[in-house]
Amino acid sequence: MSEHIVTAFTDELEHLSANLLRMGGLAESMITDASRAVTTFDLELAREVIKRDKAIDELEAEAEQAIIRLIALRHPMASDLRAVLGAMKLAGDIERIGDLCKNIAKRCLELTGDENRAAVKGIERMAKAVSHQLQIALDCYLRQDVDAAINVLDLDDDIDDHYMSLFRETLTYMMEDPRQIGSNTHLIFMAKNLERIGDHATNIAKAVYYMVTGEAATAENIQARQGTRES
Amino acid sequence: MSEHIVTAFTDELEHLSANLLRMGGLAESMITDASRAVTTFDLELAREVIKRDKAIDELEAEAEQAIIRLIALRHPMASDLRAVLGAMKLAGDIERIGDLCKNIAKRCLELTGDENRAAVKGIERMAKAVSHQLQIALDCYLRQDVDAAINVLDLDDDIDDHYMSLFRETLTYMMEDPRQIGSNTHLIFMAKNLERIGDHATNIAKAVYYMVTGEAATAENIQARQGTRES
Repeated sequence: MSEHIVTAFTDELEHLSANLLRMGGLAESMITDASRAVTTFDLELAREVIKRDKAIDELEAEAEQAIIRLIALRHPMASDLRAVLGAMKLAGDIERIGDLCKNIAKRCLELTGDENRAAVKGIERMAKAVSHQLQIALDCYLRQDVDAAINVLDLDDDIDDHYMSLFRETLTYMMEDPRQIGSNTHLIFMAKNLERIGDHATNIAKAVYYMVTGEAATAENIQARQGTRES
Repeated sequence: MSEHIVTAFTDELEHLSANLLRMGGLAESMITDASRAVTTFDLELAREVIKRDKAIDELEAEAEQAIIRLIALRHPMASDLRAVLGAMKLAGDIERIGDLCKNIAKRCLELTGDENRAAVKGIERMAKAVSHQLQIALDCYLRQDVDAAINVLDLDDDIDDHYMSLFRETLTYMMEDPRQIGSNTHLIFMAKNLERIGDHATNIAKAVYYMVTGEAATAENIQARQGTRES
């Protein structure tokens, strides 16, 4: 690429990254607020979270347009092309996180307000863990930090365990009081949505790994990399 | 592009499409077999479906490599670039369908075999509807048929209704017999996984709409298009 094109490419890529981080920040706030709506049974806040999803959808559409323009006009190659295609994946994952938060908020509207407090507290704890995971994943992207990205992948196992124990706990409440089956099922789905948000945060970390190293974030590649670093 | 490059691009794009359709066929067979494993309580088949997911993951990785090569070497523009980026989305959606089928098969291993038959039948019916929807979506892609793609979007509402009625029905079984709460919860999650497979089939149809028309498949755009066609 000529110097002029390189600068234009770098500027546009930085602009795109900034927009993705903004999208990510919005998604983070949606996780926190959806969880708060559930724990405080704040239906107004739940409705507000549902509305906020549209903003993320629009940011994703803008990001896609920018990506298409970047590829068509700047013909990026090698690591530049990886950065652009990685950005496309990131945008898709953040958009899905927005959808999942919207789902949690929609389910909040179906609650009765007298759900089992321990189960509700479980949702709150899980939301905190997931929002923290997303924060670190976005930070990896900003700093293009592979080692931190590998740490995010480890965090995901904790969140899966979290989900499984919350799932089993909620089942016992359902057995104790079958009238609560309907609303407790909503809590289980909320926990599942949070677990899937964790998966998307993991995808973001994997995308960062790929952008920086040019390799897929498979267990073998990561082990080989850690082996080299330690030896 | 020179004529030589155009032919090479067309050949490679066709090769890529053929691979995506093969991936799609594999995903279709996974839906059918996962559902059969549940209805016939065939744990061997469930384990086999779980294994098959790896093949889809590998095909996705191959497709991504091909896409990166295509963009880097052929510099596609306009509708060619849309075709390539659309293919990347398709590959991602089919890969997710494989994951969801694997989840259904994994949950099948948690069943006891004496689940409520009506609920199990409901899973079978829903799996048929979803597999049909995916088939049509893949066919739209093969024929680059926008009108058929719009029909797929309509099918998705049916599947969502299907899911909601199965969900409510299964809740009543849980209330009647609290000992069945655990395994019925697995059935509800299976139904939810099928519903999400339907969402991915919808995404495929939306990607086709975008590839062919260059516009996002929003309700407004589709309505405007249908209005023009009818007048």
